[in-house]
Amino acid sequence: MVGDMEKTLAELASIVEGCHTGDGRVRIQKAAPFETAESEAITLARSPKYQRCIAETKAGAVIVPADFDYPGLNLLKVDNPYAAFARIIAVLHPPARPAAGIHPSVLAGEGFRHGDDTAIGPRVVIGRGVVIGARCRIYPGVVIGDDVVLGDDVCLHANVTIMNGCRIGHRVTIQAGSVIGSDGFGYAPDGERYVKIPHTGIVQIDDDVEIGANNTIDRGTFGRTHIQRGVKTDNLVHIAHNVVIGPDSILVAQVGISGSATLGRHVVLAGQVGVTGHLHIGDYVMAGGKTGISKSVPDGQMISGAPEMPHKLWLRVQRIIPRLPDIRKKVKSLERRVQRLEGDPGDGATKH
Amino acid sequence: MVGDMEKTLAELASIVEGCHTGDGRVRIQKAAPFETAESEAITLARSPKYQRCIAETKAGAVIVPADFDYPGLNLLKVDNPYAAFARIIAVLHPPARPAAGIHPSVLAGEGFRHGDDTAIGPRVVIGRGVVIGARCRIYPGVVIGDDVVLGDDVCLHANVTIMNGCRIGHRVTIQAGSVIGSDGFGYAPDGERYVKIPHTGIVQIDDDVEIGANNTIDRGTFGRTHIQRGVKTDNLVHIAHNVVIGPDSILVAQVGISGSATLGRHVVLAGQVGVTGHLHIGDYVMAGGKTGISKSVPDGQMISGAPEMPHKLWLRVQRIIPRLPDIRKKVKSLERRVQRLEGDPGDGATKH
Amino acid sequence: MVGDMEKTLAELASIVEGCHTGDGRVRIQKAAPFETAESEAITLARSPKYQRCIAETKAGAVIVPADFDYPGLNLLKVDNPYAAFARIIAVLHPPARPAAGIHPSVLAGEGFRHGDDTAIGPRVVIGRGVVIGARCRIYPGVVIGDDVVLGDDVCLHANVTIMNGCRIGHRVTIQAGSVIGSDGFGYAPDGERYVKIPHTGIVQIDDDVEIGANNTIDRGTFGRTHIQRGVKTDNLVHIAHNVVIGPDSILVAQVGISGSATLGRHVVLAGQVGVTGHLHIGDYVMAGGKTGISKSVPDGQMISGAPEMPHKLWLRVQRIIPRLPDIRKKVKSLERRVQRLEGDPGDGATKH
Repeated sequence: MVGDMEKTLAELASIVEGCHTGDGRVRIQKAAPFETAESEAITLARSPKYQRCIAETKAGAVIVPADFDYPGLNLLKVDNPYAAFARIIAVLHPPARPAAGIHPSVLAGEGFRHGDDTAIGPRVVIGRGVVIGARCRIYPGVVIGDDVVLGDDVCLHANVTIMNGCRIGHRVTIQAGSVIGSDGFGYAPDGERYVKIPHTGIVQIDDDVEIGANNTIDRGTFGRTHIQRGVKTDNLVHIAHNVVIGPDSILVAQVGISGSATLGRHVVLAGQVGVTGHLHIGDYVMAGGKTGISKSVPDGQMISGAPEMPHKLWLRVQRIIPRLPDIRKKVKSLERRVQRLEGDPGDGATKH
Repeated sequence: MVGDMEKTLAELASIVEGCHTGDGRVRIQKAAPFETAESEAITLARSPKYQRCIAETKAGAVIVPADFDYPGLNLLKVDNPYAAFARIIAVLHPPARPAAGIHPSVLAGEGFRHGDDTAIGPRVVIGRGVVIGARCRIYPGVVIGDDVVLGDDVCLHANVTIMNGCRIGHRVTIQAGSVIGSDGFGYAPDGERYVKIPHTGIVQIDDDVEIGANNTIDRGTFGRTHIQRGVKTDNLVHIAHNVVIGPDSILVAQVGISGSATLGRHVVLAGQVGVTGHLHIGDYVMAGGKTGISKSVPDGQMISGAPEMPHKLWLRVQRIIPRLPDIRKKVKSLERRVQRLEGDPGDGATKH
Repeated sequence: MVGDMEKTLAELASIVEGCHTGDGRVRIQKAAPFETAESEAITLARSPKYQRCIAETKAGAVIVPADFDYPGLNLLKVDNPYAAFARIIAVLHPPARPAAGIHPSVLAGEGFRHGDDTAIGPRVVIGRGVVIGARCRIYPGVVIGDDVVLGDDVCLHANVTIMNGCRIGHRVTIQAGSVIGSDGFGYAPDGERYVKIPHTGIVQIDDDVEIGANNTIDRGTFGRTHIQRGVKTDNLVHIAHNVVIGPDSILVAQVGISGSATLGRHVVLAGQVGVTGHLHIGDYVMAGGKTGISKSVPDGQMISGAPEMPHKLWLRVQRIIPRLPDIRKKVKSLERRVQRLEGDPGDGATKH
């Protein structure tokens, strides 16, 4: 693989507002992992594990914490090496951009407007009254319903569906196959049968959100389902009607959030977590994989288990669960021994 | 948001076969939640919580149980307020209907037939011998295989795939991105490798079913996978080959049902439940979130846990699990104390 | 249902390298289950359960183990009856094949090449530099990114997305709606916010793999996510960036594998299993449904539970969990009794 761009170490240092040691003129064509980086690549050594063997890398330059030094190497020193590495990967390997313009096969309804430098690929279908911002990339097979609004720099990957009336902010990316604005799951029992609750609300996705592949985000019954600024969801995540996901929250793969639950800011839910409806998860809450959250959780808690408990308690509990057969045996044995002890005085008494 | 239709309170009462108090001529343009309803809206007060503060609503009319009264308000009194509200939302906010007709970009194979007033949107691909009923709505990007039959009033949202031979009843809605008729997951071991079991069956979906977004329903190995009348599935639900889901059953998001399992009528499986293959779940069974169902379940049971147990037992068990460290400590302490007690008589004996 | 092909029993025996008893000229038109097979069908009796009532079947022929006999019936005797049945279903019911050729509505970028007898259906969109092998079937709505390579005999069902640069081997089938090559879920924290880690790697899928419907397989951060020869995944499976799935492994529905985890050969993960990132699961490991795998697992282990433990231990543990209320009660009772016992000697002493 040949890198897409070439920069000198000094240029890269300038881009990430760091400083460099060694030869600032060394030409960097790509970013690569520590173990496999060659002389044309820059790599990352943010942990002591990598810093200890930094002399072994063949990389042309290494990103390190600002207080790390190693004479004779080309280092790029920054406060946040991981974030700097992310930014440098983006510079050296810019995503393929389809040429700006609307492919002639695109079908759009009345009132469609779009900003400058937006690229809309083949076979995209766009409803009436849709507004798409500048510099967006819309890939083939995307279907956009009526009255949808997309901000600037939005990327919708192939076969994404955005349904009527949904609103997407700036710099939002949605991976392939996701569905935004499906009906919420609500039915009123009527004898043995159910009457569908029509869903008249929308999904609103704020700026800087990234939605993974094959997600499903339902529209509100009334009002909106609201994915706030900076939220990231992994693949196959389900978000039900009228849920609010607070800013910068992270939902890992296969998480499911039931209707009207609200998450605060900077919540992290690990893979396969399930959240019951109508509860609130506070700011900065973290939940381990497969947690079943059945009650509201105060700010800052770290939880695990199903149902949820403090993570530290769960660490102890999960060590005990495999010992339950042993504990049960001990309890049975104790019962026999205590019964014997309780009997003994009587026996002893008769012996006297 | 302006309502799509306007009805008087008296008209609405007539539609839902209820009666009204107050001013039957009040004009209602929309349905809205209790807290935010304004004078042009009708809202719902089905629980005492809302009925106690019913004077506070600004709604133009309120749907209440038949035996509730409040002088001076415009009330719509019905036996089933929630179902009536659902029907009234549908009346006031009818779903956007694409104009009837087959978009010129639709590609259909030989023998394609369809009923009156059916709308098939851009870019839909339809196989040979397909029959689609009256008043259907087929959204862009839908792919329908050969010999598929759809009843009347079917709605297939964008990017749905219905594969060869599947049969869909009347008034069925399938949310975007779902796949109906993928091959079942069956392989015959042959030494270290596997031979695929071809799947020659179909998926049959009966009347009044609603399938959520990004579901996967596999065809039968032989015969059929059968989703019976009135079933509702939420998003990201998986239903394997030859499964039978009985009438009016409810599968909440991310439920997975393994091959040849059968569910009775009116079963409710909460989010992320998993069902082992080849078992039977009886009528009216309810399973809590994340239940792992590994054995057949008799009619009417309420279960939870993984593996499943009676829900009432699970409520007690789940309160004890976080106390396991405490229980273990107590058992250890008891062992020491009993050992001491067992030793005492001997010691005592030597003291004599 | 009429079978698609007709073969004599002798011809079928020859195809699966078995031998037959009875009338080799009997004409077989279809494969069918034991209970419903009629005279034109062949069926399977591989287990004693079916062999005991083999005289009851109306099937024209029955596939049985090589050492089984039953005078008067038309038997097809093979070493591996189940695999032979699978092969015979494929012979008698060959999958519908669209006519070879590229539909005129297909859009392909510069440098697109394909092999003989490949069929590409309507509305497929193909990027630049794509190479597709011989005898492939690409169904409507598929989107293939730039520089993708597909081997021979690949089948991509409707609405599949294969993103830039991914490589697919020979005889690979991908069920409808799956996404191959979405970005991995990686973000570098930067204060309260996150910087996206661009994903420059690919997904590589080796020969004889089958991917279920609505799967999501992320590309590598660098390098590749690697699905090795013969792997089978069920529906709604998630595989994160840089994961390696070893040959002939089986991932049942709704399994999720976190980033950089590696699976050995012939691993079997049952439904809804979750795997933590950066761990290794050894060859021939089997995990029960809903297992949460949080640590590396040595070769050959059979595990269950969340977190995982040996399956045999889990069988005992899961029988004890519902008895926890009883155990807790016994411990409380023991405490009282031991306290009384500890008190008694003192009391006794004062009585002396």
